[in-house]
Amino acid sequence: MFLTRTEYDRGVNTFSPEGRLFQVEYAIEAIKLGSTAIGLKTKEGVVLAVEKRITSPLLEPSSVEKIMEIDAHIGCAMSGLIADARTLVEHARVETQNHRFSYGEPMTVESTTQALCDLALRFGEGDEESMSRPFGVSLLIAGHDENGPSLYYTDPSGTFWQCNAKAIGSGSEGADSSLQEQYNKELTLQEAETIALSILKQVMEEKVTPNNVDIAKVSPTYHLYTPAEVEAVISRL
Amino acid sequence: MFLTRTEYDRGVNTFSPEGRLFQVEYAIEAIKLGSTAIGLKTKEGVVLAVEKRITSPLLEPSSVEKIMEIDAHIGCAMSGLIADARTLVEHARVETQNHRFSYGEPMTVESTTQALCDLALRFGEGDEESMSRPFGVSLLIAGHDENGPSLYYTDPSGTFWQCNAKAIGSGSEGADSSLQEQYNKELTLQEAETIALSILKQVMEEKVTPNNVDIAKVSPTYHLYTPAEVEAVISRL
Amino acid sequence: MFLTRTEYDRGVNTFSPEGRLFQVEYAIEAIKLGSTAIGLKTKEGVVLAVEKRITSPLLEPSSVEKIMEIDAHIGCAMSGLIADARTLVEHARVETQNHRFSYGEPMTVESTTQALCDLALRFGEGDEESMSRPFGVSLLIAGHDENGPSLYYTDPSGTFWQCNAKAIGSGSEGADSSLQEQYNKELTLQEAETIALSILKQVMEEKVTPNNVDIAKVSPTYHLYTPAEVEAVISRL
Amino acid sequence: MFLTRTEYDRGVNTFSPEGRLFQVEYAIEAIKLGSTAIGLKTKEGVVLAVEKRITSPLLEPSSVEKIMEIDAHIGCAMSGLIADARTLVEHARVETQNHRFSYGEPMTVESTTQALCDLALRFGEGDEESMSRPFGVSLLIAGHDENGPSLYYTDPSGTFWQCNAKAIGSGSEGADSSLQEQYNKELTLQEAETIALSILKQVMEEKVTPNNVDIAKVSPTYHLYTPAEVEAVISRL
Amino acid sequence: MFLTRTEYDRGVNTFSPEGRLFQVEYAIEAIKLGSTAIGLKTKEGVVLAVEKRITSPLLEPSSVEKIMEIDAHIGCAMSGLIADARTLVEHARVETQNHRFSYGEPMTVESTTQALCDLALRFGEGDEESMSRPFGVSLLIAGHDENGPSLYYTDPSGTFWQCNAKAIGSGSEGADSSLQEQYNKELTLQEAETIALSILKQVMEEKVTPNNVDIAKVSPTYHLYTPAEVEAVISRL
Amino acid sequence: MFLTRTEYDRGVNTFSPEGRLFQVEYAIEAIKLGSTAIGLKTKEGVVLAVEKRITSPLLEPSSVEKIMEIDAHIGCAMSGLIADARTLVEHARVETQNHRFSYGEPMTVESTTQALCDLALRFGEGDEESMSRPFGVSLLIAGHDENGPSLYYTDPSGTFWQCNAKAIGSGSEGADSSLQEQYNKELTLQEAETIALSILKQVMEEKVTPNNVDIAKVSPTYHLYTPAEVEAVISRL
Amino acid sequence: MFLTRTEYDRGVNTFSPEGRLFQVEYAIEAIKLGSTAIGLKTKEGVVLAVEKRITSPLLEPSSVEKIMEIDAHIGCAMSGLIADARTLVEHARVETQNHRFSYGEPMTVESTTQALCDLALRFGEGDEESMSRPFGVSLLIAGHDENGPSLYYTDPSGTFWQCNAKAIGSGSEGADSSLQEQYNKELTLQEAETIALSILKQVMEEKVTPNNVDIAKVSPTYHLYTPAEVEAVISRL
Repeated sequence: MFLTRTEYDRGVNTFSPEGRLFQVEYAIEAIKLGSTAIGLKTKEGVVLAVEKRITSPLLEPSSVEKIMEIDAHIGCAMSGLIADARTLVEHARVETQNHRFSYGEPMTVESTTQALCDLALRFGEGDEESMSRPFGVSLLIAGHDENGPSLYYTDPSGTFWQCNAKAIGSGSEGADSSLQEQYNKELTLQEAETIALSILKQVMEEKVTPNNVDIAKVSPTYHLYTPAEVEAVISRL
Repeated sequence: MFLTRTEYDRGVNTFSPEGRLFQVEYAIEAIKLGSTAIGLKTKEGVVLAVEKRITSPLLEPSSVEKIMEIDAHIGCAMSGLIADARTLVEHARVETQNHRFSYGEPMTVESTTQALCDLALRFGEGDEESMSRPFGVSLLIAGHDENGPSLYYTDPSGTFWQCNAKAIGSGSEGADSSLQEQYNKELTLQEAETIALSILKQVMEEKVTPNNVDIAKVSPTYHLYTPAEVEAVISRL
Repeated sequence: MFLTRTEYDRGVNTFSPEGRLFQVEYAIEAIKLGSTAIGLKTKEGVVLAVEKRITSPLLEPSSVEKIMEIDAHIGCAMSGLIADARTLVEHARVETQNHRFSYGEPMTVESTTQALCDLALRFGEGDEESMSRPFGVSLLIAGHDENGPSLYYTDPSGTFWQCNAKAIGSGSEGADSSLQEQYNKELTLQEAETIALSILKQVMEEKVTPNNVDIAKVSPTYHLYTPAEVEAVISRL
Repeated sequence: MFLTRTEYDRGVNTFSPEGRLFQVEYAIEAIKLGSTAIGLKTKEGVVLAVEKRITSPLLEPSSVEKIMEIDAHIGCAMSGLIADARTLVEHARVETQNHRFSYGEPMTVESTTQALCDLALRFGEGDEESMSRPFGVSLLIAGHDENGPSLYYTDPSGTFWQCNAKAIGSGSEGADSSLQEQYNKELTLQEAETIALSILKQVMEEKVTPNNVDIAKVSPTYHLYTPAEVEAVISRL
Repeated sequence: MFLTRTEYDRGVNTFSPEGRLFQVEYAIEAIKLGSTAIGLKTKEGVVLAVEKRITSPLLEPSSVEKIMEIDAHIGCAMSGLIADARTLVEHARVETQNHRFSYGEPMTVESTTQALCDLALRFGEGDEESMSRPFGVSLLIAGHDENGPSLYYTDPSGTFWQCNAKAIGSGSEGADSSLQEQYNKELTLQEAETIALSILKQVMEEKVTPNNVDIAKVSPTYHLYTPAEVEAVISRL
Repeated sequence: MFLTRTEYDRGVNTFSPEGRLFQVEYAIEAIKLGSTAIGLKTKEGVVLAVEKRITSPLLEPSSVEKIMEIDAHIGCAMSGLIADARTLVEHARVETQNHRFSYGEPMTVESTTQALCDLALRFGEGDEESMSRPFGVSLLIAGHDENGPSLYYTDPSGTFWQCNAKAIGSGSEGADSSLQEQYNKELTLQEAETIALSILKQVMEEKVTPNNVDIAKVSPTYHLYTPAEVEAVISRL
Repeated sequence: MFLTRTEYDRGVNTFSPEGRLFQVEYAIEAIKLGSTAIGLKTKEGVVLAVEKRITSPLLEPSSVEKIMEIDAHIGCAMSGLIADARTLVEHARVETQNHRFSYGEPMTVESTTQALCDLALRFGEGDEESMSRPFGVSLLIAGHDENGPSLYYTDPSGTFWQCNAKAIGSGSEGADSSLQEQYNKELTLQEAETIALSILKQVMEEKVTPNNVDIAKVSPTYHLYTPAEVEAVISRL
């Protein structure tokens, strides 16, 4: 049974007899090993919060970047292989910069997400930009454009969905349940911060500190919270 | 028996001893896992209706796009891998735009369908536009051109047929039977809307709401129904 | 015994120890699953007749094209994978158009057939126009040029033969026997129409109607019969 | 024993441990399945004669071309895959035409043969002109140039030999023996015609008629015998 | 169990069913066989120290370069395959030189590290600069730029982290524990030198001499210690 | 034992665990099946003699070319696959012609040999000139340049040696022993002819005649002996 | 155990689960079959000495080149596959010539060595200059530049080391022990010659003569010893 599977996924981007793409499913497994990230959309803007796994006290916590800016009006949180995420983000940064240069205005959040997913979809094709395997990363893309705040969720298959709230990574199952209970569209940004961090606290196995979580908002521009700002949210829990 | 099959489909686009193309057949399996979509052609125009699977209440229903505009006079409903469908639709959009620019008139619905199918046929060939596997998606293409309204159905092999009515996706078998009973060429567009939605209702496991179905028409231009317009059709059931 | 075969055809275009090309033989199997097509050459012109399999009453019969025009003086009937046939026909259309443009005169029927077969022969070579597998289609090419009417038969190996009469597809064996009994070079075009349709009737499992057969002639130009013209031939049976 | 062979020929153009090239040997097998062809060189010119297998009475005998003109002073008879032979002959026609254009004189028979063999040798290399497998055809190349008449024999390995007389195809073994007995350098062209046809008659399983054999000569230019001319040779047997 | 692994890593850059990249994990194994290297960041600058394995007394110790300069303000210590490290360092040197030329200022340490990791990530893609396998080397990159001193650690997956102190190579496990005990941010550069060498001494199986260790600092420019300077540090132990 | 070998040579140009290149060794086997060729260097010039295997009395002996001219001052004798040898010789002819054109003087014999071996070494690399397998041929290259007469021996690995005398092909083992006994540097060209032919006679299974051996010399220019000249040498035996 | 190894090295340039590169290790095996070569660095210059295996008395000893000049100030001795060594040396010659042309001064010995190793490292990548397998050769590179005399040792992995003395090839193990005993930095060039030859004599199975050893020095320019000069060294033993 298992052996026949190995036959299919070795073609990297090939259907199995049941119509499945195994390499994509395996990449999704890679994300289940990743740290947890949470996003919530409010009318005031979008909040992103991530768990940072500091494997050694000698690591510089600020260098474990799991939330990154794409453009002034777009940021993203990631779970999975960090090096893959950096490549996608770098690609998105070039796209949004080119858009600004060509059209004199910011790229919409959906177009930016689509551009990221186009790259993710075309793995295994041997052209210059694409990877020889699926990107082993999921992203929560938070942005603010002419349509107001928005939150997108992408997976390694190159599919994306717009969400009100979403969790990814190893603790996503429990976190998603909590989000469904606590989320409503009338949340203030401050309430969203508190919910994000309280849920993150549940799935993490250690005490929450400014060293092991990162928070960012897009409201309407991207801002990564300073340790003091994170501490302030923690103190509200 | 089964093992020898695995030998053939690893060549992606290769005949088996019985003259079959397994990767294409497996891609067709992927569609059988997809959500149901229905199209009906009337003299007044074409109606498309799709089931939207909202896996989480936190997803924005409008972002689960299973009906998309190709050009002002062409739209399509899809079943299967959404990321693949987006690539095909994007390809068709460029083709129809180029046609308008080069010839000053809209591309016919058949030419647009042929262009989509050309791309779908040539998988596994390593050139720039084609995929390394079949596209795991079926489309119902609704359009209106100098020959009046028309409805096309495409499958992953790159074959297409013109239809009066057609269902695709996991519930297509039952839906096709119902269509054959209820369809006639003299239907009004409003009757077609009602039939499409009543059949969709049968195959879906939950209550039909503006959140979990989408309806669009091409009559003679593409229009995606607002939640209120969908509600109006639901109320007629 | 069977397993060693699978070793050979995985090289797509490779000889077996007995000097055979299995992928080509498998593609020929694909044609044996196809619908039946018949061609007859008379002094007045060539007649083509095909069975159309309408799998659903909702399909538009006219969109199941199994006879297509290549140029004003050449048409073809096909059996096998329709998407493959469309690619070959499109290639032939470009070739005949280029020929008219470059030389100011129509391409001969043999040159057109050779051009089709060149493309069919070179599968598995990775260049831009060729397929990664053999084309799974046989064609009956009917034409009229300076040498008068002619009928060619092509198979997936890229070989072609000139014929007086020929049947292809799932019912070809019985149809070829009938053709050998009934064919003579002095047939009128009308007699050829009647023979073609009466033989097609024998191999089809359902009643012959303008909906499930197509007839065309090249005499000296290509003409696809209207439903009324098909009905007239049926009434003569 | 047999299984280890399959390991080697999958590399298409690779030596086995005994220093053999299996794909070439397998292609030579393909020729042993082909129809028989015979060539004889006389001082007056070269005669080629081939068996034509007319599988159906509906085939046009003249379209089963097993002897083809390369240039006004060169013709060839073939045994094996006809589509492969057509590709080689087409290549040779371009080469001889280019030579005439560039140098204002006909290409020698040996240079033409070398050009054909260069193409045959380089299979499996992925460049534009070469095939992905050996050409499954042997040729008898008859020509007349400044060195007088000549006859060359080529095989799928790209090797060629100059001969006084040679038979290829399924009946070549018996035919070669007969040729060794009956051939001498002082034969007239007419005697050579008679010998060629009488030997062909021995290896064919049916009665010799203008429909199932072709004869051509290069003396000093290429001429394919009309049915009447073939009948005249038959009557001399 | 083990056999199925061999199926996955043969695709070089492919996920296993559990979401793992085996070639990257195997490359990390290569580093565990390498010599030990240690880096410590202080406010005054960064110290790097490496063990040199002199396999033969005939080798020139100075030619066993395990610490190399990248630019005037950046150096790195390596563990793993030396030839791979040289390629990465050479790539980084070109990048930093180009940056100085284009922008008239030094490249930041993080950008330099990112450029190295981009190259490391894209193995198995067949373009000109990338390798056909992961780079079998880890680097400790020490630098000084507008943000002051910094120390980065890279692994074969193309991921990097900023650290206060880090050990790599065969003795890294024990060395990392010792670093966590002895490191604090207020260390002087001289104290850091002493700690680095005392830890290196623990993991090496032979006496520490200027012949079998190398020390370098970036403070604020790169300097490789002379044998006398190394001797001075040794004497302080 | 044997099966593991098959694993290695399928990579065409890959080392086995014992450090061997099997495809090259297999190609050397191909030569052991070839006809015998002998070369001797004297102060007056170099003599080459080859056995010609005339498999049929109908073959033209002069067309079985086993000694070929490369340039006016260089010739070569071959054993192995004739089509491969022709490719190498054609390559060398172009190289020597280009050299004459560019530098106005003949290419040295060593440079010509090196050019041949460069091509032979780079098999399996997919570029335009190289083969996808080793060349299955050994050459004895006889030449005369500013350094006087010289004789080179090349094998399929692309290695070459300068020799005083050498035999290649199926009878090379016995012939080499005889050469070591009979060769000395003071031989006249005529004595060398006699030795070459007498040794060839020992390894051939049939009577030596001008039809089944060829002799050539480079002294200082290439000359292929006429049948009469060969007869003269035979008569001296 | 052994079988799983064969899985890894078929990817040519791929890590095994233990972090090893088997093709490189197998290439190193090829060198263990090669003839022995020895290098010694003195203050006056560098001495290279090699064993030449003359397999037949008919081979020209001077054509068995195991020591070659790269540039006026650099020479190298080799062990392993001679054809591979010639390719590397030819590459190095072009590099040093280009350097002289571009910068008007000789390339340093280290840069030349690095250029050789860059080529060796990048095997299996399919670009124009690199090989499809590792180079099966080790080199001792002797040179003299602005830093005085130097001796480098390279292996098939593309790694290089600077040495005072080094032996490579089948007798390297014993020779290296002897070198460690006898070498000191104060040796004169003449003493180095004597040591090199006396050690070579120990590992060779036959009497040392000017025919089966070669000696060269770089002091400060490359010089290959004449037979008389070799005889002089032999007489000092």
